[in-house]
Amino acid sequence: MNSFEEVNYFVQNGHQDYLPHISIDCVIFGYQQQQLKILLLKWKGLNGWGLPGGFIKRREPLSEAAYRILQEKTSLNDLFLQQFHVFGDSPYRVGERSTREFTEKFGLEVQADNWLFERTLSIGYFALMDHVKVNVQTDFFTDDYQWWDASDVPQLLFDQNEVVEKALLTLRLQIYHQPIGYNLLPEKFTLPEIHTLYETILGKELDQRNFSKKLMALGLIQKLNEQRSIGAHRSPFLYQFEKEKYEQALKEGIVHTY
Amino acid sequence: MNSFEEVNYFVQNGHQDYLPHISIDCVIFGYQQQQLKILLLKWKGLNGWGLPGGFIKRREPLSEAAYRILQEKTSLNDLFLQQFHVFGDSPYRVGERSTREFTEKFGLEVQADNWLFERTLSIGYFALMDHVKVNVQTDFFTDDYQWWDASDVPQLLFDQNEVVEKALLTLRLQIYHQPIGYNLLPEKFTLPEIHTLYETILGKELDQRNFSKKLMALGLIQKLNEQRSIGAHRSPFLYQFEKEKYEQALKEGIVHTY
Repeated sequence: MNSFEEVNYFVQNGHQDYLPHISIDCVIFGYQQQQLKILLLKWKGLNGWGLPGGFIKRREPLSEAAYRILQEKTSLNDLFLQQFHVFGDSPYRVGERSTREFTEKFGLEVQADNWLFERTLSIGYFALMDHVKVNVQTDFFTDDYQWWDASDVPQLLFDQNEVVEKALLTLRLQIYHQPIGYNLLPEKFTLPEIHTLYETILGKELDQRNFSKKLMALGLIQKLNEQRSIGAHRSPFLYQFEKEKYEQALKEGIVHTY
Repeated sequence: MNSFEEVNYFVQNGHQDYLPHISIDCVIFGYQQQQLKILLLKWKGLNGWGLPGGFIKRREPLSEAAYRILQEKTSLNDLFLQQFHVFGDSPYRVGERSTREFTEKFGLEVQADNWLFERTLSIGYFALMDHVKVNVQTDFFTDDYQWWDASDVPQLLFDQNEVVEKALLTLRLQIYHQPIGYNLLPEKFTLPEIHTLYETILGKELDQRNFSKKLMALGLIQKLNEQRSIGAHRSPFLYQFEKEKYEQALKEGIVHTY
């Protein structure tokens, strides 16, 4: 949706095609070179950063809407996308936006009762990916994007800082029983590789010995009878995720560890 | 809301006071005498069972709406109530109800485009309580309630069986890092008491020795230098929840165990 005509039609009549009062926000975590990043889009004119998001079509299943929005914004569609929370504690959420500013910045005439200016709850989804694979799409409202350090996110639109915080908390809490990180490591990896991934996501140091014991005890990974040769005296053993458990988890969204 | 006039006004004009397209469903777990139950309400005439629920007022914070609905249905208001998932994968959710049947059963005239018959997503919340404390309120639409065994829930309205299943899964998954069960044990309890509670919620046997080790290792409970005398040769040690950690958790919703 990039032309003025398309966008104007959406603004004036979108409530006929989409459900009003409820939107989707995506927190897209990118992992690379031991850093955890978050994808933000810059709103044209407003000079503010926000999360990629969108609305649910009238007859579209909720999870399909989330995958469609992710695909539209990042051109990726085969990710583990997880719903984590609904944000609706601000009684004027979104509705406090100025229609006049909207008209000035984007040239779109809107009435005070326009559906985009009504109170809107937002359903948060997160995904974790290798961020070099992402082909970010800006649109009519946004003109730039940036991967921000997860520990240094700027002031975002509405209550989106709270959305990011909750996503991060959920990601960290579920790292030991959700299939998080599955697509971020090679199929066979060393303990230092998964150790670094977990330390980066959790944002703290983990005792390496206890960490590997824990992952083995939870049944998340298994040791292979194979070593990787990386030097004369260094050939660490390789590990892989417990495939069946993870495939089950990708279906159900949860690894049953207890 | 019990009189015909009140209900008729709500049905015809409720969308002016409440947000359409989005509702709240409450899964209320009751624990007593080593059994885990779920509260269901019986819809008048429809001969079907459903979850207590309601809508969000136009300017009401989401979590306040959840507590208000819980209070209206159970007369309880000081519980730990937890949002766990939004259900919206059925593109005709609720909308498939027959307006004619509605008119026949309840004597309420409704048009095909009535707001209660539009597609409605539902936000699931759960609470866990001692069920003797609950004073269940039926209303215009419901004429009976029952505590059903969690493992034997009947066919429910819409997709509410899925709502119950997901609540149960979440409860079980989070039992080791959420303040679940805090209000179900005496302040000072024995290991067999908390062991039984956890076995009942998880619906399976837990090795008692490993279980208490795990709770101690996670820092969820602490052993007191106190014993309860329950017979000539029986005086088990008492334990209590790690208060500070749990109070923090009740605020943030999560115990940070790693």
